[in-house]
Amino acid sequence: MSIVAVGTVAIDSIETPTASAHHVLGGSATYFSYAASFFTKVHLVAVVGDDFPMQHIDLLRQRGIDLSGLEVRRGGRTFYWRGRYHADMNNRDTLEVHLNVLADFNPTLPGHYRELPYVFLGNSSPQLQMRVLDQMVRPQMVLADTMNLWIETQRDALLELLPRLDGLLLNDSEARLLAEDENLVRAGMKIRDLGPKFVIIKKGEHGSFLFSRDGVFVLPGYPTPDVVDPTGAGDSFAGGILGYLASDTSPPPGRLRRAIAYGTVIASITVEGFSLDRLRQTTREEIERRLEEYRRMITF
Amino acid sequence: MSIVAVGTVAIDSIETPTASAHHVLGGSATYFSYAASFFTKVHLVAVVGDDFPMQHIDLLRQRGIDLSGLEVRRGGRTFYWRGRYHADMNNRDTLEVHLNVLADFNPTLPGHYRELPYVFLGNSSPQLQMRVLDQMVRPQMVLADTMNLWIETQRDALLELLPRLDGLLLNDSEARLLAEDENLVRAGMKIRDLGPKFVIIKKGEHGSFLFSRDGVFVLPGYPTPDVVDPTGAGDSFAGGILGYLASDTSPPPGRLRRAIAYGTVIASITVEGFSLDRLRQTTREEIERRLEEYRRMITF
Repeated sequence: MSIVAVGTVAIDSIETPTASAHHVLGGSATYFSYAASFFTKVHLVAVVGDDFPMQHIDLLRQRGIDLSGLEVRRGGRTFYWRGRYHADMNNRDTLEVHLNVLADFNPTLPGHYRELPYVFLGNSSPQLQMRVLDQMVRPQMVLADTMNLWIETQRDALLELLPRLDGLLLNDSEARLLAEDENLVRAGMKIRDLGPKFVIIKKGEHGSFLFSRDGVFVLPGYPTPDVVDPTGAGDSFAGGILGYLASDTSPPPGRLRRAIAYGTVIASITVEGFSLDRLRQTTREEIERRLEEYRRMITF
Repeated sequence: MSIVAVGTVAIDSIETPTASAHHVLGGSATYFSYAASFFTKVHLVAVVGDDFPMQHIDLLRQRGIDLSGLEVRRGGRTFYWRGRYHADMNNRDTLEVHLNVLADFNPTLPGHYRELPYVFLGNSSPQLQMRVLDQMVRPQMVLADTMNLWIETQRDALLELLPRLDGLLLNDSEARLLAEDENLVRAGMKIRDLGPKFVIIKKGEHGSFLFSRDGVFVLPGYPTPDVVDPTGAGDSFAGGILGYLASDTSPPPGRLRRAIAYGTVIASITVEGFSLDRLRQTTREEIERRLEEYRRMITF
């Protein structure tokens, strides 16, 4: 089944303690779509300026990603982010951010997107996420990401959105903020009570929690010794999850658990290179091999 | 098989964001021994002052722990630690520490301890750990804990100790410090190259890594919603690991993995109360139930 993925397509400049990459392809919709494309057809919704390099368009197209929802704004510049990771690679500082064409992004979905069954709402204001959702006819599964900015400034709109979601993705500090509880297990349970059918709390290299009607599920990160650049880990995690869910029609709960394991593995591949460098080299076969290796690593 | 456990027996005062406990039983040898006592016989080595409350002696004795190696120093005062946990319960500040009788602790093992097969060397200077080890006749398995202080001030002595160990336990920041590598997976591999047969990196609520000749094994923490006091988590984790290993004679590697799972579960019970409060209420049956629940939580 097909996925509509709404988010950002960006140009990133990244510094890590050992290396850097300048003006490379980034953005939540980019990472999500590329990761999900290993499992199913993805229809992207985003905006770029006319400075956006054609080679990036080609790269996404080669993965079979439908770009008819990618608006190229004439005379506009693409969303740009520059950041620097700390020594531990878990925290980062934003050094520069230019919203550019993203500032007034208000997507209108192409007609053939509206009846598609799976929807990913990348991190953006809950109002924008709601407007996208309103354009979908009868989505079977909606997964949304959010961030501290919206929890702090648009809590009411976010609370209105939550019951319309199947799954909410957020990181550990965001979960504490939204639930107003320092204990992540309690926080996850509380957030689920706010409406989404399931909640996934991302803990970066430490893995993730899933809270669903079947209880708590917990997975460590895949332990890679080769962390080059953590950018995009969360969005490719989401892409692996929803991509797998869209491709597997077996009954829950095993399906959702397997999806999170796939997301974990794809995220671990993403961080082994800058931008999409490492994902571009991978194959469904490598993903399956790493999944089995991962399963062995956590079995006692 | 029996375990010799060398470490501290302490009086702790603990403040958390929501509660506090004053002058309660603590110490590495205490938590280790109590946790291991669910699996096997433990012979404790430690020192206290004659201010040490008799009720604590009774408590340990009731678990069948051999206290003939517990020196009660006349006119001395017991090691005292006072600390306060931050809101996230992962970090803490030491507010007060009085080494008291611990300052010149130089244990002489009772004769019947010396031929026992399993040894736990709780966190102390590598010189002291070495002197204990020198008193053992032919230990089959030695597990040691260490800390940043010894890595920074007695690195050479620690490096001399490592090849004599089967297992080294240390936390994430200590592993980074010892290996001089920010990536924990690489750090674990490097530390194993320094001599111990296996290395366990503790990540608090995020679980642990095992590095052995069978590769990397990774387990998340057991997700408990009831974290009351994290004190003793690491030492009861160690007690669960070595206790289980001493009670199971099946071949590796499954044995070491199961041991770490038991350690994880016991640590999660420890943190649900102050001091030994929660461990005192638990049973081997509860431990087994939680282990199975934990296994389900990480299976995909």
